Amino acid sequence: MVVRQRARDHGIAFGELPVGAHNAITDVPDITVGSVALCARDGEHAVRTGVTVVVPRPGSLLTAEVPAACHVINGHGKPAGLAQVHELGVIETPIAMTSTLSVGDAFRGLVLDALRRDPAVRSVNPVVLECNDGLLNDSPSLPVTAEDVLAAIDEARSGPVAEGNAGAGMGMSSFGWKSGIGSASRVVRYANREGTIGTLVLSNFGYPRDLMIRGCDVGMHLPSPATPDRPGSAGSFVAVVATDLPLDSRQLGRLARRVQSGIARVGGYVGNTSGEFVVALSVTSSSPAHDADGLDVVFHAVVDTTEEAIVNSMFCATAVTGVNGTTVPELPIGPVLTLLRERGVLA
Amino acid sequence: MVVRQRARDHGIAFGELPVGAHNAITDVPDITVGSVALCARDGEHAVRTGVTVVVPRPGSLLTAEVPAACHVINGHGKPAGLAQVHELGVIETPIAMTSTLSVGDAFRGLVLDALRRDPAVRSVNPVVLECNDGLLNDSPSLPVTAEDVLAAIDEARSGPVAEGNAGAGMGMSSFGWKSGIGSASRVVRYANREGTIGTLVLSNFGYPRDLMIRGCDVGMHLPSPATPDRPGSAGSFVAVVATDLPLDSRQLGRLARRVQSGIARVGGYVGNTSGEFVVALSVTSSSPAHDADGLDVVFHAVVDTTEEAIVNSMFCATAVTGVNGTTVPELPIGPVLTLLRERGVLA
Amino acid sequence: MVVRQRARDHGIAFGELPVGAHNAITDVPDITVGSVALCARDGEHAVRTGVTVVVPRPGSLLTAEVPAACHVINGHGKPAGLAQVHELGVIETPIAMTSTLSVGDAFRGLVLDALRRDPAVRSVNPVVLECNDGLLNDSPSLPVTAEDVLAAIDEARSGPVAEGNAGAGMGMSSFGWKSGIGSASRVVRYANREGTIGTLVLSNFGYPRDLMIRGCDVGMHLPSPATPDRPGSAGSFVAVVATDLPLDSRQLGRLARRVQSGIARVGGYVGNTSGEFVVALSVTSSSPAHDADGLDVVFHAVVDTTEEAIVNSMFCATAVTGVNGTTVPELPIGPVLTLLRERGVLA
Amino acid sequence: MVVRQRARDHGIAFGELPVGAHNAITDVPDITVGSVALCARDGEHAVRTGVTVVVPRPGSLLTAEVPAACHVINGHGKPAGLAQVHELGVIETPIAMTSTLSVGDAFRGLVLDALRRDPAVRSVNPVVLECNDGLLNDSPSLPVTAEDVLAAIDEARSGPVAEGNAGAGMGMSSFGWKSGIGSASRVVRYANREGTIGTLVLSNFGYPRDLMIRGCDVGMHLPSPATPDRPGSAGSFVAVVATDLPLDSRQLGRLARRVQSGIARVGGYVGNTSGEFVVALSVTSSSPAHDADGLDVVFHAVVDTTEEAIVNSMFCATAVTGVNGTTVPELPIGPVLTLLRERGVLA
Repeated sequence: MVVRQRARDHGIAFGELPVGAHNAITDVPDITVGSVALCARDGEHAVRTGVTVVVPRPGSLLTAEVPAACHVINGHGKPAGLAQVHELGVIETPIAMTSTLSVGDAFRGLVLDALRRDPAVRSVNPVVLECNDGLLNDSPSLPVTAEDVLAAIDEARSGPVAEGNAGAGMGMSSFGWKSGIGSASRVVRYANREGTIGTLVLSNFGYPRDLMIRGCDVGMHLPSPATPDRPGSAGSFVAVVATDLPLDSRQLGRLARRVQSGIARVGGYVGNTSGEFVVALSVTSSSPAHDADGLDVVFHAVVDTTEEAIVNSMFCATAVTGVNGTTVPELPIGPVLTLLRERGVLA
Repeated sequence: MVVRQRARDHGIAFGELPVGAHNAITDVPDITVGSVALCARDGEHAVRTGVTVVVPRPGSLLTAEVPAACHVINGHGKPAGLAQVHELGVIETPIAMTSTLSVGDAFRGLVLDALRRDPAVRSVNPVVLECNDGLLNDSPSLPVTAEDVLAAIDEARSGPVAEGNAGAGMGMSSFGWKSGIGSASRVVRYANREGTIGTLVLSNFGYPRDLMIRGCDVGMHLPSPATPDRPGSAGSFVAVVATDLPLDSRQLGRLARRVQSGIARVGGYVGNTSGEFVVALSVTSSSPAHDADGLDVVFHAVVDTTEEAIVNSMFCATAVTGVNGTTVPELPIGPVLTLLRERGVLA
Repeated sequence: MVVRQRARDHGIAFGELPVGAHNAITDVPDITVGSVALCARDGEHAVRTGVTVVVPRPGSLLTAEVPAACHVINGHGKPAGLAQVHELGVIETPIAMTSTLSVGDAFRGLVLDALRRDPAVRSVNPVVLECNDGLLNDSPSLPVTAEDVLAAIDEARSGPVAEGNAGAGMGMSSFGWKSGIGSASRVVRYANREGTIGTLVLSNFGYPRDLMIRGCDVGMHLPSPATPDRPGSAGSFVAVVATDLPLDSRQLGRLARRVQSGIARVGGYVGNTSGEFVVALSVTSSSPAHDADGLDVVFHAVVDTTEEAIVNSMFCATAVTGVNGTTVPELPIGPVLTLLRERGVLA
Repeated sequence: MVVRQRARDHGIAFGELPVGAHNAITDVPDITVGSVALCARDGEHAVRTGVTVVVPRPGSLLTAEVPAACHVINGHGKPAGLAQVHELGVIETPIAMTSTLSVGDAFRGLVLDALRRDPAVRSVNPVVLECNDGLLNDSPSLPVTAEDVLAAIDEARSGPVAEGNAGAGMGMSSFGWKSGIGSASRVVRYANREGTIGTLVLSNFGYPRDLMIRGCDVGMHLPSPATPDRPGSAGSFVAVVATDLPLDSRQLGRLARRVQSGIARVGGYVGNTSGEFVVALSVTSSSPAHDADGLDVVFHAVVDTTEEAIVNSMFCATAVTGVNGTTVPELPIGPVLTLLRERGVLA
């Protein structure tokens, strides 16, 4: 796999806040990310899919509460676990991301993970998010297994996050270009302490003409990636926002609701069929800080990391040929950079 | 299996509205119900679980919209599919009910059902509801399979509904007594037409002392079914409310929100861990009637059918011995009837 | 005004939990209640209305957060302030209850109250709840003034709460009988501490035949209070639930959602036009206790106090003649007690 | 008042969709807009406020349903009427916009308006939206009266909409610059018919550095309008989205939820204290069209009109000096145009 560079490696900045060590969700202490990509066969039954997991903390989450919230931007999607997160304000499992039709298998994987940690478990709330990779992936063959989820959890680690085609990103595309997993982070001060906001997205949305990078209407200037068999579609989008700031579920819900603003900054209109969901969590379960205007910097960080993570999901992805030979090209970074320079956005 | 009689067969009435032909959700035209009960082994790995499906209409629901809504009474549960029902106001699959840890397998089953109807499907929103039968069932062995869901759909039919231990009801208990599936229906007039309201519940909630039948505090007078290994717990509860009245998603949501009132009438307080969810649907997708006070009779029907369905779920269930020999006794109907007669509620 | 006795003074108990000193919302430390009843003129322009305020804490609430939540049971109503309570989880003013058309004037009154405490205020979120007293009150004359709200706040006190026709209760009726303000409290243990749950209701809902007291279908046995000009209607209902347990906004929302179960216990079906709203608050802003099954006793207390408060709102109200000579009779307590004795509910 | 030109008059386009005749919400048939600006006194008690009303249809709305929905982007605000709009999916009054502390008086004005149309009214749900103009306006003096609302309704008309400082816009500012009322419209095809999407905003939000116009980071290049006494703040924002497409309440809610994306396009992050609310309505109450991907063009229209309306609210506003001599300058359009030309966004 060709390794492509992230947006920031090309000198593109998003907002004014400082980034974390790896500019990734794993900059939030304790957070690890694991992924299993499935790439097999060509033709009608090509498998181009995978699983990505965000693990909030080592060990069972059933015995150590992780404050969390969720937000539905556009409910045309099939997530699992959101009702209980909303009611209780905590998550009990890693968050798994995968292909739409494979949510059930991912659910089963998270149940098995809870049971291997504690065989006495009789109730657990698996959180599964999905995007539809049916353009490249023979999703009806249900290639993702519960064991893939366990493997993704087992290989989860801190440090740099695999982006683009990694894990669940294998079969995703955005604005007509190959996309997938992306991440970014910011370091902020709130309530007299320093904290990190880290976002990881699985990006699979957007019409070609709508793509906007750092305010430049890139989608209007690039040759269209759309073809008759890939006219572009509304897609879907899911994100995990994590922090070590001591925020409670209600406050985390406020963070989650700012993700839509980050999507808008890359040109997303939240299409009819675009299931867009966010889970926000804090690895710190101590007393929440009160809401104050200082929270605005946290909101800025959520929007900026969302925007950057989406762009990273495209910058790092490479072209993939999948079902029936359908190819989704990679975003041509050269022309993008040229346009940004012409527009004075990039030096 | 001993067939026990429903509440109404003992002369117990619930409210003043007339009941449908079978006093069941299947009195709503097109609605069919199917169930597969799994009962195998004794001891540590006893299987006492199953699947019940409510099928709104024959054939694929993806090609013929079924207006629907959902409501979360208490979100401590693991349903699938509710976000999209909320966003789009329709359901795309039969509604499957099963054991908590088996939601993923039921999800897979509904995906397979959609695919066998139309192999071109790349996105479908399975609706799965669950209660926790871990008291009687070795739920960690994940005994429910996707094929069980397909079988339940295949055997779904109109007419009388199997109640008590049938299907997903096999391992459930309420107020310390064996319960499971229950159903009831009412015939009402709204918006110048006659229509049916049918409710089916999977009942698995309630502390022994709280049980109330037709206003009588039965739970305070029966010998307690609780034992040290079964102290009673908050449980969980799911319901499907169906009608052929031309109500849209917003209006169906209003029906769904009245189910809590029916639960209260049998003494339910909606406990902390009791995941309580409702899906309401209409088999008629024509123009909605406007909200008017005439809607109140529909609301009465929802409350009355919920109350009666819960009582039926107990009256029709028989004692079950499950995991490690744990036995949940059946509700002793004789003493209940005696109390109701003493209280003047029953002739 | 004839003083009538509360339900418990007649020996009627609701649930098994111990009651607070005054069996009222004022048993929660710091909580005070004030009311101004307006009763003037007869005939077409008869004024039968008022204001009741629940004051969570002395002094400005803008400088000392009061955790709070709200819940909409049936949104056919005109409350003010709920959106911000939902977003921020706190209340900033006393909670005012009044006549539907007078919400604007009550809003103005709460703004003036905030300004008299601190003239520098430029933003404050008044919380106003309402029921429709148009059956007895010439509500279109907008008789409630901002000054009435200030007066109600000024006279708020702890100790016994004026029920029935007091304050906003002056023009309300339920199940065809005169009702109004009612209250009740319970003492519970949760999270290793003792706390009080106090509920105050403004009750204005229910069809005559539906009235149920302690499970007895009183409404089916009393001579109907309905007349051709007062056929009974769905009405409306608002409640304030207060506690000194250290619960946060999310948890208080869970309490608020149990109020519907209490309404059901007196026979309420939540009618189409019945605006039913709940605000729950804690006077203790310290760290929240985690949700646990121990919370169930708190939920029981919410349901039981709601039920008892509604019954008190009728037991304590006396007949009122209002607009155009319309009279709403008081609930005939004698026959109610007789029925409860016949049913074995009352000794 | 100096008349300033709208963005489009300077050649700035927003998206690719065609605009309506007046590029305003009044392009939607039946919709009229009225405003009353209050500008009196200087110094400590300067009045700089007003009322703007959007009237969906002539005559009483109580007798002819107007489908509607609302959406809370950030609930730190004091709107009235949203709960009932959410429950019933219709509005019953014009939508009034005004100063935060004056919501009660606007509520009273809408009640009086309903009563002058029909003295038999006993219940009506006034919809009032607000932003905080306390920076320029002596809002604690509560200068807005119920009569101002009646006057705004009386003078409501179709055709061009007064923008900038008009009506409720008199005391508002955004990104440190004077703003207020703005509007825009688009003509789209959906469900085999042509329809108009019109948006009207009351804009009062944003930190100076965040301002973005057509993707250009204008706020980073203009000299900051902030001064020590006006450091900029999160503000608030309300919008009305109207259409003549036959969309029902659920669908209108989907439109309302896209407004956040339009806010993001001018650089808004949805600040902590920024109460951001949307009401969407259809003047066509016929059967709703089904959701389909064709709806995406409608969503684009919502985002584009929101963006353009916000920019118009600034382009059309002129500097205002208010309380204690505080001046909010007008956006310097020349430098903005220069930057847009340098960036290649404007010819």
